[in-house]
Amino acid sequence: MIAIDWGTTSFRAYRLDAQGTIVEARNAPKGILSVAPGAFPGVLEAEIGDWLGDAPVVMSGMVGSRQGWVEAPYVACPAGFEEIAGGLREVREGVWIVPGVSCRDAAGVPDVMRGEETQVLGAGRDGLLCLPGTHSKWVEVRNGRIERFSTYMTGELYAVLKTHSLLGRMMEEGRPDRRAFREGVARSGEPGGLLNHLFGVRTRALMGELDAAASASYLSGLLVGHEMRASSASRIVIIGERMLAEHYRDAAQGLGIEAELVEPTCGTRALFRLGAMLRGTHANK
Amino acid sequence: MIAIDWGTTSFRAYRLDAQGTIVEARNAPKGILSVAPGAFPGVLEAEIGDWLGDAPVVMSGMVGSRQGWVEAPYVACPAGFEEIAGGLREVREGVWIVPGVSCRDAAGVPDVMRGEETQVLGAGRDGLLCLPGTHSKWVEVRNGRIERFSTYMTGELYAVLKTHSLLGRMMEEGRPDRRAFREGVARSGEPGGLLNHLFGVRTRALMGELDAAASASYLSGLLVGHEMRASSASRIVIIGERMLAEHYRDAAQGLGIEAELVEPTCGTRALFRLGAMLRGTHANK
Repeated sequence: MIAIDWGTTSFRAYRLDAQGTIVEARNAPKGILSVAPGAFPGVLEAEIGDWLGDAPVVMSGMVGSRQGWVEAPYVACPAGFEEIAGGLREVREGVWIVPGVSCRDAAGVPDVMRGEETQVLGAGRDGLLCLPGTHSKWVEVRNGRIERFSTYMTGELYAVLKTHSLLGRMMEEGRPDRRAFREGVARSGEPGGLLNHLFGVRTRALMGELDAAASASYLSGLLVGHEMRASSASRIVIIGERMLAEHYRDAAQGLGIEAELVEPTCGTRALFRLGAMLRGTHANK
Repeated sequence: MIAIDWGTTSFRAYRLDAQGTIVEARNAPKGILSVAPGAFPGVLEAEIGDWLGDAPVVMSGMVGSRQGWVEAPYVACPAGFEEIAGGLREVREGVWIVPGVSCRDAAGVPDVMRGEETQVLGAGRDGLLCLPGTHSKWVEVRNGRIERFSTYMTGELYAVLKTHSLLGRMMEEGRPDRRAFREGVARSGEPGGLLNHLFGVRTRALMGELDAAASASYLSGLLVGHEMRASSASRIVIIGERMLAEHYRDAAQGLGIEAELVEPTCGTRALFRLGAMLRGTHANK
């Protein structure tokens, strides 16, 4: 079976054996933003044409969005393997796209994810799962089903502030400064709220209390701290690339939250299981 | 006497009579960002050379910053007319710059203002004063002295998100949408926090629940709501340009806060009084 994580900026393919173990992996900077409408089959051929054959291909991520290969409509929460398998879309023989998941919060405001649901189900953990990133997801899983989730614009806000705001003008690229990051996390719990805390990045630098290299880490700590304090969990699972996940674990420690780290390639386990469910469906046809 | 509000993007001069009433006003897009180092005296001559003579000139705003004519160091809170008069800097005979004001919050994080202190003292109100803007100031005044204040990056965050984030891509310039603005203000009090609420601007638009023209007003309401909820006041004074001040009053109403509006030209009253105090000082020389 072939499992693919096809996101906004990258294409990650995994060839799995009969037990679901990764045999071979390929990455390419062929995210959907770089693919013209109609060019998706060609990219798939070019990247893993030699893998294609009888094995089913199951793809998750933004490839299933309106800007992707074909839109696979969101499946509403609560959603586990059954519900998500029910929303799979076949885009050509043996090539399937996993749907995203949607929910509404208590106030009725909608939220969506696409790609993260595969990692969440692949992690095989109940409880509160945190997937840090441009748009961080916090996902509540019970009995193997996604009950609800919330998105935080943390990564995007960090990038936008660093590149385009007054705060960024005082920052220098440098090694992450762990102490400044932790100061930011601690600050996030003080009165004033985020809009006030952001201005403090500037005033502390202005007063010589934060140097240009530490400012970026302090800002990052502030934002991650605000994200993390929105939940009241005492224990979380973090799914993410090593460096980012460790930053989040660092922040969690500062807040007395116990955090377990899981590699995002756990998503292949969910894709493998969805592939197996497909074979079952086919047998019924 | 001549009162000048010389900020980042604009130069506003007022000729006052012996009672402090505005006799004539001139505005020019000659903020300090457009003035080369050393070119400040020339700009002053060019804009109001015909007004200059025996009358003292008192200037407030970013003209007293490191990037301005001459740096007038911050005066620490609590600061009233006496303290601010003590920090006036004469940059050439009869031409004075008003210092900014600084303070520290309970956690020791510094905050600064430059220009707003003049409007605050000119308003002549005790209580909590709100000065909305790129960097909104909330100022506590007791017995005519600024006791403490906090800055919120509301206006800058709005502009940066609208111009550079994913949220802005879905927005269209349009007339302010009062209903959407109020929905944003109400949303700011719901669980999740600002980072989560920001993503909701996107998902509500994605789901067709917020149109492109209303999105900007909803975002504005969200941010102003978060700013306003950081205080627990039941009564405030808003000093700002008419349209912005009315938006803030609208938000205040939504939160059950009583708001009185004061025109920002009240700053000339403070500059007039500082000018009068200077004459007293001169008499003592």
